[in-house]
Parts: sequence; structure tokens; C-alpha cells
Amino acid sequence: MSLDDPLSLAEAAAAVKERRISAVELTRAALDRARSSHEQLNAFIEIEEEAALRAAHLADEALARGQATGPLHGVPLAHKDMYDRKGFVTGCGSKIRQSHVATETSTVMQRLEAAGAISIGRLNMSEFAMGPTGYNFHYGRALNPIDPERITGGSSSGSGSAVGGGVVTAALGSDTGGSIRLPAACCGIVCIKPTQGRVSRHGVMPLSFSQDCVGPLARTVEDAYRVLRVIAGPDGRDTTCMAVPRPAPLMDEIGALRVGILGGQFESGLDDAVGTAIETTAHVLENEVASLGMSKGIDMPSIAELANVVAMAEAGTVHFDWMRESAEDYGPQIRMRLAQSLAIPAPIYIRALQMRSVLLEAFLNEAFGDTDILIAPAMPALPPLSSEVDIGTSPKMNAVVSAMTSFTRPFSFLGLPVVTLPVAVSPGGLPIAIQIIARPWREDLAASLARRLELILSLAAFTPSTRTRSAA
Amino acid sequence: MSLDDPLSLAEAAAAVKERRISAVELTRAALDRARSSHEQLNAFIEIEEEAALRAAHLADEALARGQATGPLHGVPLAHKDMYDRKGFVTGCGSKIRQSHVATETSTVMQRLEAAGAISIGRLNMSEFAMGPTGYNFHYGRALNPIDPERITGGSSSGSGSAVGGGVVTAALGSDTGGSIRLPAACCGIVCIKPTQGRVSRHGVMPLSFSQDCVGPLARTVEDAYRVLRVIAGPDGRDTTCMAVPRPAPLMDEIGALRVGILGGQFESGLDDAVGTAIETTAHVLENEVASLGMSKGIDMPSIAELANVVAMAEAGTVHFDWMRESAEDYGPQIRMRLAQSLAIPAPIYIRALQMRSVLLEAFLNEAFGDTDILIAPAMPALPPLSSEVDIGTSPKMNAVVSAMTSFTRPFSFLGLPVVTLPVAVSPGGLPIAIQIIARPWREDLAASLARRLELILSLAAFTPSTRTRSAA
Repeated sequence: MSLDDPLSLAEAAAAVKERRISAVELTRAALDRARSSHEQLNAFIEIEEEAALRAAHLADEALARGQATGPLHGVPLAHKDMYDRKGFVTGCGSKIRQSHVATETSTVMQRLEAAGAISIGRLNMSEFAMGPTGYNFHYGRALNPIDPERITGGSSSGSGSAVGGGVVTAALGSDTGGSIRLPAACCGIVCIKPTQGRVSRHGVMPLSFSQDCVGPLARTVEDAYRVLRVIAGPDGRDTTCMAVPRPAPLMDEIGALRVGILGGQFESGLDDAVGTAIETTAHVLENEVASLGMSKGIDMPSIAELANVVAMAEAGTVHFDWMRESAEDYGPQIRMRLAQSLAIPAPIYIRALQMRSVLLEAFLNEAFGDTDILIAPAMPALPPLSSEVDIGTSPKMNAVVSAMTSFTRPFSFLGLPVVTLPVAVSPGGLPIAIQIIARPWREDLAASLARRLELILSLAAFTPSTRTRSAA
Repeated sequence: MSLDDPLSLAEAAAAVKERRISAVELTRAALDRARSSHEQLNAFIEIEEEAALRAAHLADEALARGQATGPLHGVPLAHKDMYDRKGFVTGCGSKIRQSHVATETSTVMQRLEAAGAISIGRLNMSEFAMGPTGYNFHYGRALNPIDPERITGGSSSGSGSAVGGGVVTAALGSDTGGSIRLPAACCGIVCIKPTQGRVSRHGVMPLSFSQDCVGPLARTVEDAYRVLRVIAGPDGRDTTCMAVPRPAPLMDEIGALRVGILGGQFESGLDDAVGTAIETTAHVLENEVASLGMSKGIDMPSIAELANVVAMAEAGTVHFDWMRESAEDYGPQIRMRLAQSLAIPAPIYIRALQMRSVLLEAFLNEAFGDTDILIAPAMPALPPLSSEVDIGTSPKMNAVVSAMTSFTRPFSFLGLPVVTLPVAVSPGGLPIAIQIIARPWREDLAASLARRLELILSLAAFTPSTRTRSAA
């Protein structure tokens, strides 16, 4: 079988299990792609060849002994540089942590390893996961496999680049205000930002403990969902991770779902191509679901602002000591944003937290109403040119950050699950993505609808083979 | 029987139960004392004569029907102006809430009423419970029954004044950084600041939700403890109120207790009379307990600072809207302190909260060590003259607040239970009090030791009859 096109997770795991291919072969191919694409994508901070091949050998040996039961057995993946693995560096895309060796393995990595997955390296990211463009002062930006002049989005920039570029089939990212969803949208791939409290953050670099989520980026809904089901669920280590049933299997039938297109500021100021993509999506869904209407939403811009206040206040806390002791080791943009966090008054932060349950209740009642799923653009505009958002510490910085995250932050603040899916291609060949938002814990509904849309739209421009070619 | 000396709670409840006196007679006597002492003490914001007599009649009728089973049946009390009672004003010592009628009854008042207690009025307090001196811009300060030139301490100023002045046998106060303990110390009475999470705050004016405690002030340890046992325990309304067993009955025997005198900054910079009082207390205890030693403590001044940061940040949140909409209705001192709260950076607040469990663990290990009870002064100095601390909004304000609360705030922050007990009289006739501090939930140990000390010391200057005379 050909290794030029990476297989889907399901295909790869099945091929290994049925011994049509070995874990070592799959892993070598992924390592080859990682190396050969490195100059074009800059997706990796470190390719961990030796450890990956050792793990692949062990996976093949386990298979030979009949001990290969995990849903990801022998499949090579790579993850954002922020999930601890005992004995490995977790660098967080930073200089400060560039040599930090973890002494324990994070829950998400334990679960991926228990499922048989192999890690081939640490992916690029915005420094300490701060920054929606993917800019990284220390490691350079990862490149968008669709158009290298465009940003990948961030902070899970390397995850977007490596999955979009066909290097690996899936990668973990983290999302505090859009950090999984923006790279998925910019790189034309799929992601799931889970419900707040769905996935343990034990051993995961913190940014904003009340909004940080770990979730998968992948090329298909099914692949992303497969990873989510592996990593979901409480571990007794992260007390905010809830004991709710694991996400249910995807439904083949979505005819019972009631869908709303989110209005308010989600339909104003959109690029024409984005507006058209939403209309097309609505048109397609009309014949697929029980009902389709407009949802007026609630005052979402202010929610985005609250989300930012909470994120920055908590980030300022995480980085307090390093900012005092080694501020010079931060990239200038991150240093300036962290310094700004000290200007957030504590009463404003506390009030923002108090508003959270109130706004969630209002949103569930008013925006969701009789609806199961809401749809909104991932971004108001097309993925920007990196030259447009290379703002360093200019006064434009906060404006760029705000604009890019205005459609994603509200769902971080509300803790709702979101599947991001590319649904259209702009006249210039750029991906346009939507957010498919469900009530808490209903990732299954959002992903089922996403899979159906994916099937109908089957966007030729963003099939895996196109991506692999463009990245090769 | 004479009504000039108010009875103890136990005596009063027994006298009513055995029909040696009626609830109406007891209540009339308390109302008389409240009225006749008003000019000297200014302890009441409102004397609720009509409602009190109505309640007393009902109490007598219930007794006649054999339905008087509560441990406070027919006993008149009065409380700080901050506990909601349906249909009554809760004014919080403020102008802003001066006409606010509660629509529900707080848990503590429900429990006191269920126990048969009668409320004769709302007691003076620092505006919104902010301020350790007892100063109130709107209602004037309550006066110290021992010496009217001295402050009562605050914020439960009226509780200290009314109980110290013999008007009522006990009163509820609230303590966020010393607000029960300072009035008890200044007015020569007893109080219990319970473990954080021991008493529900449902229906209680909030100041700092992570440090606010409700507890009793009384003339004897037994009386204070009786009230604590009535109000303690979860109610399903305040989720921070824990389901732990109710405080155990007081122990007659304290010979097994291991006691430590808290050192570090608790023994430096003390007024001579305060230092001597601690020495005398230690000397008395030597023959009473299993062991007596010094406890070095941990860095407590910084804990007081953390406590203040948390209290002010949370107070700033509570008062955020009123400060925007009607700042002019606050007294100048409170307005300035609330405005300052906006200068607390959110990351500093979050870090302070994060330090809490760390410092509690350190304190339990290092300061408590092999010790059951710690002893420290309530204040480093004697109760100040009100002229010394009438600082308005002068730059001295923060210094005065810090100095007065430096010995009380740490135990608020750590959430530990404290019994405050007068143990000596200064050469000038002023009370000197100690804090008797226990591990979480061990109010029984602190109060048992306090009762034993009270018995041994039996301070003539602060027996109820002395107080009643000085207030009459």
C-alpha cells in the first residue's frame, strides 16, 4: 500500500492490526514526511525519531504477541509541545521551558499511549499557547500548507500545519480562546474543542485554568472523534474533569436534529466568501435536519471580552514568577501581553467569573432555545496573510488578537463543545470553516452533523491527497 | 428575680422554661436596657420593640402549649444589621441599603428563631462590615461600655457594645479579618469565629465570600458556644458550608490538651500589658494542660497581607455596581477603600487564593506541629482611643487598618476557628484579650480551654454585673 497519502486513523489502525503494514513502516513514513516537509512547514520543534521507532518496534512486538487492542495501535501522531511525557522535554514553544524534562506523563498522553499511538515529535505552537496567529518569536512560525503566505492560526500552529500538511493524521492541540479552532480553520482541517471538563488537563501546560481545553485536530471528523473518545473522561488528577459518560458513538442519522444559524454579530461584518459559505451550509442542511432557523444569540462581543479578561488574568498568574525572574526570556509580544495582565483589576476578574454561569444559562435558553446545534463562522474573515498580522508589540496587537478570536472566545467562556469543519473554498483557494456548537457534553451531536456535512460537501480542494501534494 | 443583671443564656432559657419568668418580661427588660443605654452606647441602628414583644408573646403562648423545646426559648438577643429576616430591613450599617427589606430569612436567623430566640433590634456596625475600628459615617460609632473614649473595634461594633454593655447576653457578628474578634477584645467579652465553612452565609450580607464567617459574641464562653451550636451546620443553600458533625459539647477536662504560645511576630512589638497578659496566661495554663511550649509560627505578616488582598478584591466585586451608580452614598472612608480595590491586579488575587491551601498546610504542620491549641494576642496593643483612629480618609487609614488586623487576619485567611477571651486588665482598666486557635472544626477544643481559663481567671473587672453598672 502507498504511504504517500497518510491513511485515516481507522484505516491505519486496521492496517496495522491486520498486519498489512507494520507500526515501524507507518512510523518511518511519518518521520520521512516530517523531515521532508520541515523546511516548508516548520511544524516541528523536535522530531523524536529514535523514541518513535523504539515505540513502533514495541508496538509491532505487542501485536505479534496478540497484545494490540487499542484503537490507535501502531499509528504515528505528533502533538503540540505542551503535554508532559516522563523523560521527554515539554518546551511549551518557549525559551524558558526549552530544556524542561517532565517527570510524569500527562493523562492525555498516557491514554494515547495506552491506545497504542506513537509520538513522532513535538509540534510548534505560539509561545506558552498565547497568540491566535501562531507567531513564535523563538522558533519561527509554522507555515500554512495551503498557502505559506497565510498564517496557520494559533496557538496550535504546528498541529494545524502538520495535520493539514499530511504529515500526521491527527494531533492534539489546546484551546483557551480558539487555539485549536483557528488553526483548524486556517489549515482547512477538522477539530473538536470539547466541553469544558471533558478532558483532563493533568500534566498539560496551563494557560487559563478555567478555560483551557485539550482536543484533537484531524483531517476528518471521524478521526478527530476517535481521538476524543480515547482522551476523554476523568482521571482523579484534574478535579475539574467531570465523571460524565464518554462521548457516544457518532450517529449515522441526523434527521432529528434542530439546527440554528447563530445571528447577531456572527452575521455582521463577514467577508463575502464567509457569508456565502454560511448560506451554502444552511442550504445543504435544510434537507438534512428536522428544522433550520436563525438564532438571535445573546450579546456575544461582551462575552469575548469577559473571556479575554479571565484568560489574561489567569495567564498572568501562571507566569507571575517567570515574569519577575526572567522576563527577558519571553518573546516581546508575549511579555507585553503578560505585563498587561497586571492591569486587570481583581474585581473585574471575579465579576467575569461570576457572569459565566449566568451567561451560560442565558445562552442555553435564548440562543439554543429549541435548538440542538448552532452554526457560526469560525472567523469573520479569510485566513490573513502573515504579513498583515506580524504586529510584534505594535499598538495593533490587541486589536488583531481580539478580531481573530471574536467568534471563538465566547464558546471557550461558556465551556461549550465545538466541532470546526471546513465547508467552502474562497475564490482564492483558501478554506472557510464553520463552528458547529452543541450543548454541554453533546460532542456526539456536533460531530455527527459535522460528519454528514463533510460527506455531502466532500471538498475536493481539501482532501488528504491534495494536502499531501501541496505539502510535498 | 432581678432583671438588672441580664442572665446568662442558659439561666435565661431555664428560667423561661420553668416559668420563673416570662419571655415577655425578659424581652421588656432587654428593650428597656436597649433604650436606656442608647445615648451612652449607640449600639442599635433600630430597636424593634413591637416585633420583639409580639415574638415574646408567641414564645410564652408556645410555652403554655408545651411547645418550647429550643435551647434559646424566649431569650431576647440582638444582631449586627446584616442578617436577612423576611419583612425586616437589613441595612448593613449603610445608607445604600438603609431601606432594604429582605424577602427571605437567612439561615442563621431561621435557626435562632427555631431555637426560640427573640430579636430586639438591629445593631450598629461598620458600614458594610468594612473597618476594624467600628467607625460609621452614617450612624456614628457605637461606644465602648468600658471606656467611651476607646473604640469598640469593628466591624461588629454594636454587637461588642450591646453585649459588653449588658443589653443582651449574646449577639451575632461577622468576621472577615477580625470583625468579631476585635469588638470582643475591645469590649472585654468573648466570641467565637468559627471554622470557615462551619456556618451558612445564606441571607447574610457578603463582604469577602472566601473569608466571611458568622459567629457569636457573648459574655461567657458557654453562652457563645450555645449560640454556635444552634447556628452551625449546612443548609443546602450555602455550598461552602460543610457537612461536618456539629461542634461537640464542651469538655470539662482539658488536661490532655497540648498548647503552644504563638511566637514570631506575635511576640514582638507588643504593648507591655499585652506581653504580661500572655505570660500570665501561659503561667496559669502550665498546670492545666498536657504540655505548653512556644510555637514559632510561619511568616504571618505576609499572610495578613494576602488576606487583605483577597478581602478587598472580593469586596470590590460585591460593591462594583453600587460604586459605579451611587458612590456618593458611601461614607468617604469606605468609598476610598473600595476604590483602592480596583488597583489590585487580578493575578495577585488569584495567586493569593492559590497560596491559601499551601499556607494552611504549612501552618498546620509547622505552627501546630504536635499542638492542639495555639495562643496569640488578639491585638498587639490596648484598645485605641477613638481620637487616635478617627482617620477619615487620611493617608494613615491603611496603616491603622493593617495594624489593628495584623493578628486577626491570618486566621481568617487560613479559615481556622478562634475563641477570643479577655484574660487581663491593663493598669488603666482596659481589657486585654487572647486568641485561642484550634485546627479546623475543633471549636470544641478552643472553647473548652477558653472556658477553663475563664473560670480560673474570673476577672472581676469584667463580670456581667460590672458591665451592666458601667452601662447603666
